[in-house]
Amino acid sequence: MRFAPILLSSTLIASTLLAGRASANDDTEPTRIPDSAIAIAHDLRERALADDSGWKIVESLTTEIGPRLPGSEADARAVEWAKAKFAELGYDKVWTEPVTFPKWERRSESAQVLGAHAQPLVVTALGGSPGGTIEAEIVRFESLEALQAAPEGSLSGKIAFVDVHMERTRDGSGYGKASPVRGRGPSEAIRKGAIGYLMRSIGTSPNRVANTGITRFDEGLAPIPSAALSLPDADQLGRLLQRGPVRVRLALDCGWSGEYTSQNVIGEITGSERPEEMVVIASHLDSWDLGTGAIDDASGVGITMAAARLIGQLPERPKRTIRVIAFANEEQGLIGARQYTERHANEIANHVIAAESDFGSGRIYGISSGAPERAQGAIRQIAEVLAPLGIEHMPGKGGPGPDIIPLAQAGGAWAWLGQDGTQYFDLHHNADDTLDKVDPADIAHNVAAYAVFAYLAAQAEGDFGSGAATP
Amino acid sequence: MRFAPILLSSTLIASTLLAGRASANDDTEPTRIPDSAIAIAHDLRERALADDSGWKIVESLTTEIGPRLPGSEADARAVEWAKAKFAELGYDKVWTEPVTFPKWERRSESAQVLGAHAQPLVVTALGGSPGGTIEAEIVRFESLEALQAAPEGSLSGKIAFVDVHMERTRDGSGYGKASPVRGRGPSEAIRKGAIGYLMRSIGTSPNRVANTGITRFDEGLAPIPSAALSLPDADQLGRLLQRGPVRVRLALDCGWSGEYTSQNVIGEITGSERPEEMVVIASHLDSWDLGTGAIDDASGVGITMAAARLIGQLPERPKRTIRVIAFANEEQGLIGARQYTERHANEIANHVIAAESDFGSGRIYGISSGAPERAQGAIRQIAEVLAPLGIEHMPGKGGPGPDIIPLAQAGGAWAWLGQDGTQYFDLHHNADDTLDKVDPADIAHNVAAYAVFAYLAAQAEGDFGSGAATP
Repeated sequence: MRFAPILLSSTLIASTLLAGRASANDDTEPTRIPDSAIAIAHDLRERALADDSGWKIVESLTTEIGPRLPGSEADARAVEWAKAKFAELGYDKVWTEPVTFPKWERRSESAQVLGAHAQPLVVTALGGSPGGTIEAEIVRFESLEALQAAPEGSLSGKIAFVDVHMERTRDGSGYGKASPVRGRGPSEAIRKGAIGYLMRSIGTSPNRVANTGITRFDEGLAPIPSAALSLPDADQLGRLLQRGPVRVRLALDCGWSGEYTSQNVIGEITGSERPEEMVVIASHLDSWDLGTGAIDDASGVGITMAAARLIGQLPERPKRTIRVIAFANEEQGLIGARQYTERHANEIANHVIAAESDFGSGRIYGISSGAPERAQGAIRQIAEVLAPLGIEHMPGKGGPGPDIIPLAQAGGAWAWLGQDGTQYFDLHHNADDTLDKVDPADIAHNVAAYAVFAYLAAQAEGDFGSGAATP
Repeated sequence: MRFAPILLSSTLIASTLLAGRASANDDTEPTRIPDSAIAIAHDLRERALADDSGWKIVESLTTEIGPRLPGSEADARAVEWAKAKFAELGYDKVWTEPVTFPKWERRSESAQVLGAHAQPLVVTALGGSPGGTIEAEIVRFESLEALQAAPEGSLSGKIAFVDVHMERTRDGSGYGKASPVRGRGPSEAIRKGAIGYLMRSIGTSPNRVANTGITRFDEGLAPIPSAALSLPDADQLGRLLQRGPVRVRLALDCGWSGEYTSQNVIGEITGSERPEEMVVIASHLDSWDLGTGAIDDASGVGITMAAARLIGQLPERPKRTIRVIAFANEEQGLIGARQYTERHANEIANHVIAAESDFGSGRIYGISSGAPERAQGAIRQIAEVLAPLGIEHMPGKGGPGPDIIPLAQAGGAWAWLGQDGTQYFDLHHNADDTLDKVDPADIAHNVAAYAVFAYLAAQAEGDFGSGAATP
């Protein structure tokens, strides 16, 4: 999950990405889920809770493939793995669609304090950083705004160090607030003359792990080596600075290297009545390279693959198709999702509603949708089936998952199945993101929610407002 | 702290290291602490609880020096730091005594799974390991005994992988049970033909940190590259082995490199009546290189330095001297402590009683001593003053701290101030051992206990049984 600023600014999303956007449909009948489908969904929920196939998928992906940096050798293995896994799980159709992007590689990274207090620092290069070795004095800023307020040229020959503490919250809103430090900080530092960029990791772990994530350099600027420090290392620099100037050596060997073509991997449980119409449940197959991408986002892969599999095991196929998409390269800019949306631009109305699981393995506490008013009753019906899982109907909260944003911007309806992210940023984009942090019972809970949501949306009489966005 | 097997096998220690060992003293009067001293000790305890000087010392050492690998450039800086800190704290005498040892260096380390499931592993070289790069199949053993039972030559050309889970306990006894996997495992693997050695870290952290620590190769064996895996990585290898053979590349650049002379750093609050007699409270100044040695053992340095400082601030000097020793190179074999004991072999009886703080910053829950029966009443008196801190008199429990073992073996009396080590092995010998894990209030609690113990032992009428050990 990288796109939290949008994912988590729920009010904005809810008001600007109302599916369909056109009022032409407002006279249509309210969308409604038949009682027969509700009854089946109750059973589906209970079957899911007793099923460990979601967990087994997470175990398989994280163990057999490990980290899945976009464009790496493991990216290709992950695509083959996903195709084989869909097939093994009994999906009706499995295929891939190409996704092309520039490839970024991490080879090595290190940093040390120099001089009288010489000591190593735990750092990790930000995705998109160039390589390079620099030795310079660091200048600390308590906020991105403070960096922006620094006089022009004041960081000439120095390393900017932005030391913003991220807040731990259930909904992950602390990430949205802190993430510009990673996304925009390096460019701001360059404008002030800095030759390197260090930041406190955007994360909540007290451990000696640094959190990576993509950054971007504004056009016309010469990129500088940019890295994140673990929280204890950022604290250490803060204490050392109280004692006097601090010089740091930052050595990164990383950078962009050519183009790569990966694949979105798609599996379908084909609908029996309106197969061309589909409910999309998605995740992303790529991960950062430091952990094994267990919570980001093998969990989402396992949850969605297992949910549709359970629907496929019902005596009858759902009316609409359930499309499960494992997107390529979410981490470096929703690239698989953007290319998917371009490719399917003429079929937006057929994407009846879409949701992504990309916030770890924490339990779901709320559901909402940007669907128009006439479809909100159906969302409420779904929420009622989810209530025994502790899931509340929360109209107006949440937003589309990261990879659903391009689709939503194109006019597709979305649902939000909001997970508890209190612990998510202990692991997100760092080396601690491994299988042992994932609770099988939490995965089963998520599978139950996604299976109920996808099945009921597929059985709904009426739509959720998807249609081409008015320009 | 490295020497847990002895530290923690309390019954053995209590019976074999009874101070003095001679029965000649048994007719002497029971050792007794005067009421006036007890009253002062109560005040001392309360003053210590309100004092943050212990914490400040820990902060200073971990921040200004950072990791303190024996023989490193930081080792020398730490010695200068300790001398200056004793002086700054108002000690009456400060001096150093040389300690010479072979120097081991860590330069780089990495490991990867090769082949169809290629992925990086988090490893750290064991102290004493040679460098080298090997690629070989791994063979897993669930215990050291299983490795020992493997047929001769059965590991020829392979990497042994010993996968023992350490138990989390308050008294650290899980470490004593698991530590032969590190100390003896590599030699056992060589005997079976192995060309490399991997082990699950001896530790309890679920994070992606590997725990180092010294190993030894039996004479006549050609040492092999030997490293510890983080717990998640050991789990990962276990899962991969369920899928078939696993080949690993292990690349270590490390090894022994010449001799180095460091220093034991000693500070004294000089006694007013019997200055040649002393109560020793000790810690070790060195650390492993992965963290900043905050719990191992900057905490001990801060606790003991601050405790004697408080005694030095009393209106009158104690009757006996309080000697605070920050030992050199504990981690690689109690080297500073052994050389100290040799140097002071003729003054064992003057080391009236000794205790070491080398089990982190957890609170003390028990006190005991190997002193003869006639001195146990005085230990009980000390325990009574400590009772408000939640410290219990636990005769027969515990043993001398690691660096006190050589002194105890030479006939010196020892006391045990047993700390809660439930969390200790989350941090011990790994990169997470940093200042943020140390609670200032816990340090103050420890300072209070050490101040009370040292002061009352210094005021005791009668001894604790120290004397040359009968051969």
